[in-house]
Amino acid sequence: MNKIFNWGIIGPGAIAHKFVEALKFLPQASLQGVVSTNLESAQRFARQYNIPIATNQLNELLDSDVDAVYIATPHHAHCQLTVDCLTNGKAVLCEKPLAVNHKQVSEIIEAAKTHNCFLMEALWTRFLPHIEKLIEQVNTDTFGKIAFIDSNFAFKTEYPPGHRYNNPALAGGSLLDIGIYPIFLCYLLLGKPTQIKADALLNEQGVDRTLQALLKFKDDARANIFSSFHFNGGAKAHIYSCTGCAIHISDKFNTPSNMILENAKGEQKNIEIPFDGNGFNYQIDEVHRCLVQKKLQSNMWSWQNSLDLVDIMDQVRANISLKYPFE
Amino acid sequence: MNKIFNWGIIGPGAIAHKFVEALKFLPQASLQGVVSTNLESAQRFARQYNIPIATNQLNELLDSDVDAVYIATPHHAHCQLTVDCLTNGKAVLCEKPLAVNHKQVSEIIEAAKTHNCFLMEALWTRFLPHIEKLIEQVNTDTFGKIAFIDSNFAFKTEYPPGHRYNNPALAGGSLLDIGIYPIFLCYLLLGKPTQIKADALLNEQGVDRTLQALLKFKDDARANIFSSFHFNGGAKAHIYSCTGCAIHISDKFNTPSNMILENAKGEQKNIEIPFDGNGFNYQIDEVHRCLVQKKLQSNMWSWQNSLDLVDIMDQVRANISLKYPFE
Repeated sequence: MNKIFNWGIIGPGAIAHKFVEALKFLPQASLQGVVSTNLESAQRFARQYNIPIATNQLNELLDSDVDAVYIATPHHAHCQLTVDCLTNGKAVLCEKPLAVNHKQVSEIIEAAKTHNCFLMEALWTRFLPHIEKLIEQVNTDTFGKIAFIDSNFAFKTEYPPGHRYNNPALAGGSLLDIGIYPIFLCYLLLGKPTQIKADALLNEQGVDRTLQALLKFKDDARANIFSSFHFNGGAKAHIYSCTGCAIHISDKFNTPSNMILENAKGEQKNIEIPFDGNGFNYQIDEVHRCLVQKKLQSNMWSWQNSLDLVDIMDQVRANISLKYPFE
Repeated sequence: MNKIFNWGIIGPGAIAHKFVEALKFLPQASLQGVVSTNLESAQRFARQYNIPIATNQLNELLDSDVDAVYIATPHHAHCQLTVDCLTNGKAVLCEKPLAVNHKQVSEIIEAAKTHNCFLMEALWTRFLPHIEKLIEQVNTDTFGKIAFIDSNFAFKTEYPPGHRYNNPALAGGSLLDIGIYPIFLCYLLLGKPTQIKADALLNEQGVDRTLQALLKFKDDARANIFSSFHFNGGAKAHIYSCTGCAIHISDKFNTPSNMILENAKGEQKNIEIPFDGNGFNYQIDEVHRCLVQKKLQSNMWSWQNSLDLVDIMDQVRANISLKYPFE
């Protein structure tokens, strides 16, 4: 690919730094602009990475010649910003969750259709080599049908009450931030659940500090998941099959990782899976590939996938009676 | 202790062999009789271990000078046999679950009271050194309050439809056989749950092949458990605290084991916990201690503990609408 892709970033927070780090591994990418509601924050970010445009005016970025925008703001702002970018003809890679509920995700997808613009949820895990390897492994005849997935993502935070993790107005809580990973994994391997039973420990602001869910799928497959900001539970994925085999990804299943294959006799084999960059680059590479091919969505993580994922999270929230104040 | 304790066994199956193996580590125990509905099976067992009485007539054992009876039959027979033994003045160590529901366990306890006889559920795990160590560790100031327990017991079986694991008439299913272990662990560390949400995959006979449950306890503590005869999920226990510490028992938490202590920085330390015999001997030792002290129940696993445990399992079953045909 000889084409240079000009990128803009909205929301120069922690995740945006990771994105810029990833761009370094993609010579066809050029970072052209950064937008923040806080001008100083945009300027600081721009200085650090030599970015020509630093602004608190979204139009300045939208009027520039950037091809694609990476949206890295807190969740509640994804919908409006993504629609604004799409309406102005910019391709969008938007941090997960694409938006906070099914209605918002539908609205975003409508905007992408209407304006004929590429749109993808930045579910970076989907594009990592070990996830590709996982899909390959669960599809072997030896592995057989998946019987059970046991997955979770939990770590202890000491963030103050106003932090976005704790703030219902910013769609805080563990579900949308980290619970999304085990849910994504179950959906990727088993499709949409046919039944969800969930429970949650809410924080003082009313969002889920700890979330637990039992998921039922067709063909007798089941899953147990939990997420929490309350304790250090790691990020594990255990996939068990009806033939007695298993796959274990214990070392942060959502990031570049190894995996342990276990056969029906209980014999284990560790597989190291090499990866480039910081892992974030794989999803950006997919955006580039899609743009070259003039595709509006990725086959690997389609609009329908984003709709399904948010739909599952909506169902989980209905189960624990969690509504964000703006809903 | 100079006193020799004469033991009888009812139900010479797999678990009874384990019991006899354990008796070898207890010189104060003598095995005097074995009862089976199948006389040949009793005689074969008696020949193997040089046991004087081998019979299919329970009275023969009850009329002998055995001090204590170990009941190792399938679950559905525990209640009647235990009551028969207690009524005839024999101390009873009965395999877990003590009986299949709260009503039966209450009946057994009443019989122990009425006939002034020792009674204990053979929840052998309770008496193992690593469980004592676990209790000690979770009670340190450093560990702090328990936030979450993630525990399970699952293995794949290929038993035929008539096997007791699959048979509702024998109170089959994963809950009473192996789900009892993670439930016991949660109860031991957190007391009785204040809320249970469960789901189950039933087999063709209508008992739980896979069981999943979310447990809620006072003080914001939570637990996720599952049990299954459907896949090889191992027997794990992860205990997470509000201070960021954790204890991991990954190598069969219900049997003699090691444990990994994790501090709030994520640093891990492996602790090997030495044990005698095959582990089963600890519970028998407790019976001997109680008999010497003329106690009717153990302080370590009391009648109330057995009542609470079966009450939790009754609640789980109510949640998944599972009734055994004899209920």
